[in-house]
Amino acid sequence: MGEAIAPWRLVLEKAIKRNKEVTHSKYIQLATVTAQGYPANRTVVFRGFLENTNYLQMVTDKRSQKYEDLKINPVAEVCWYFTKTREQFRIRGTVIIVEEWVNDSNVGQEEIGLYSEARQKAWENLSDNGKEQFFWPTPGKQREKKWDWGDWKSEIINPPANFCLLLLQPLWVDHLQLRGNPQNRYIYSLKEGVWEWQEVNP
Amino acid sequence: MGEAIAPWRLVLEKAIKRNKEVTHSKYIQLATVTAQGYPANRTVVFRGFLENTNYLQMVTDKRSQKYEDLKINPVAEVCWYFTKTREQFRIRGTVIIVEEWVNDSNVGQEEIGLYSEARQKAWENLSDNGKEQFFWPTPGKQREKKWDWGDWKSEIINPPANFCLLLLQPLWVDHLQLRGNPQNRYIYSLKEGVWEWQEVNP
Repeated sequence: MGEAIAPWRLVLEKAIKRNKEVTHSKYIQLATVTAQGYPANRTVVFRGFLENTNYLQMVTDKRSQKYEDLKINPVAEVCWYFTKTREQFRIRGTVIIVEEWVNDSNVGQEEIGLYSEARQKAWENLSDNGKEQFFWPTPGKQREKKWDWGDWKSEIINPPANFCLLLLQPLWVDHLQLRGNPQNRYIYSLKEGVWEWQEVNP
Repeated sequence: MGEAIAPWRLVLEKAIKRNKEVTHSKYIQLATVTAQGYPANRTVVFRGFLENTNYLQMVTDKRSQKYEDLKINPVAEVCWYFTKTREQFRIRGTVIIVEEWVNDSNVGQEEIGLYSEARQKAWENLSDNGKEQFFWPTPGKQREKKWDWGDWKSEIINPPANFCLLLLQPLWVDHLQLRGNPQNRYIYSLKEGVWEWQEVNP
C-alpha cells in the first residue's frame, strides 16, 4: 500500500489520455484459467487504479464464471489494445477478490478496510444500468421466456452480496507500440518489490 | 473436414461484415495457458476461416511465447469484441500448429496436405511488412543497439521455417450482444460432432 507509481503506469496513463475520446478504450480483455485448465477470455471495463497503488480495478458478479476461475486460480492477464495510438499493454498478475467479506490470508486487516471502502465506492460509481445487472437472473443459465428484472431500485446505496471488486496486482507488463518500423516493445517486471524494465525485440 | 457451417459462424460473419470498415475489427485477443499455469493474452490478426471448415486461422512465429504455450497446452480462447455493433464472441477450442512439418498425432495424412497448402497461402497473403518480421531478431529477447533487419527479400516465396499457421478448432462459443436491455446472450457447444445452442442470461 502507498506504493510508488510503477514506471509502466506512467506510459499506460499517457495511452489512456491519448485515447480518451474513444469509448471502447476502457474495455480490456481479461484472461483467466478455468478449473479444467482451459484459458477463458472476456471483455471487462477498466474501473481505474486503486488509490495509492498500481492495482487495476474491475468489477464482477459472484455468480459469473470468472469469479469461479479466480477463486480457484487467482491469476490473470489483461490485454489492453488502444486502437487510436496502436499500442498494446499486457498486464499479468494476481487478483484479489473483494466481496462483502475478504477471505484472503495474504490480505492484512488494514488493507481489508481500504478494499471494502473501494468496493463501496466502485458500486457508487456504477451507472444505474450497471447496478441493475446484479439483480438479474444468474448469468449463463438458460434464459426463461419471461425476463425477471429483479428488485433493483435506484435507492439501493449498498452493494448487493454478489457484487465483487477485483484488484489486479501487476507483476509483469509488456508494452508493444505497433507504430514505427521496427516496432517498439518494453517489458517491465517486479523483482523483490522493485520494477525492472528492458527494451526487447518486438 | 468438409464440415457443415456451424450456426455461430453465420452470426459471426454477419458481425464481421457489419464492422468491415473498422480496421481493428480483425484484431482478436488470444488467450493461452503458459507452462507455469498462468494465463497469457495478446492481440493477433484473424486470417479468415480455413476453407470448408469452421477453423479460425492465425499466424505466429515459432520463436514466440504463444508457440511455446500452445506446444505444451494446445487450448485457446479468443475474445473478439466488435466496437461498432457492440457484441462479443468468445471462442474456445483446441489449436493445431501447422509448421514445416505437422507433428500432431490427431491429424491425418490428408489433413496434413491441406494444412500445408493453407500455410503456404497464409504466407502469400501476408503483407511485406508482415513477412519481414519473421526475419527479425528473436521476439522478447533484449534489443541490441543496432537493429538487425535480417535477410528478408520480397522475392522469398516460401515461408521460413519459423512461420506457423495456427488453426483454432472451436468447441464452445459464447455470443453476447450488449445492445438492448436486457442484453442477449447465446451459447453454442459442440457435442459429439453436432452444434447445440441455447439462449442464456447475459
